[in-house]
Amino acid sequence: VEEKPKNRVTVTIMGEDYIIKGPSSPRAMEQAAAHVDQMMRTLAAGKSGISRYKVAVLTAINLADELLRLKQQLRRYPDESRERGDEDELV
Amino acid sequence: VEEKPKNRVTVTIMGEDYIIKGPSSPRAMEQAAAHVDQMMRTLAAGKSGISRYKVAVLTAINLADELLRLKQQLRRYPDESRERGDEDELV
Repeated sequence: VEEKPKNRVTVTIMGEDYIIKGPSSPRAMEQAAAHVDQMMRTLAAGKSGISRYKVAVLTAINLADELLRLKQQLRRYPDESRERGDEDELV
Repeated sequence: VEEKPKNRVTVTIMGEDYIIKGPSSPRAMEQAAAHVDQMMRTLAAGKSGISRYKVAVLTAINLADELLRLKQQLRRYPDESRERGDEDELV
């Protein structure tokens, strides 16, 4: 985390602003945040009374589940999946 | 969300249990949850005083960023990426 952050962008999740930093382009970080915002709003709308913390946790688990599935697919193409490391992280 | 949930498993994130349901195998859901738990712990350890909600939100954004990158890679292999839809979600 916070290794060589190059870009910084302000995003809005569930009405709150966050400054995020990372090696991805500002546009990519904005897209990622918009995706999370959309997922959280959808999940929150479907479960009345659920805490925003639980919404965020369940959103993260959904994303991790999809990510691990896609990583398994990419393992079939080792040359491509090595194009960039898995360790780059936004903060 | 909650479309045809087939499997159900209890996972622990930051010391709290969650029952999650979804089309993924119990093992896949456990792996996804373990990945989120690990990411949240790492992020929380690096930022004293950060709220658990913000930790969860930043974790979700990190995962979404990586997911969108991998999806771009998979677009190069349209036959493979069509193997399963993108809409399956855990709850």
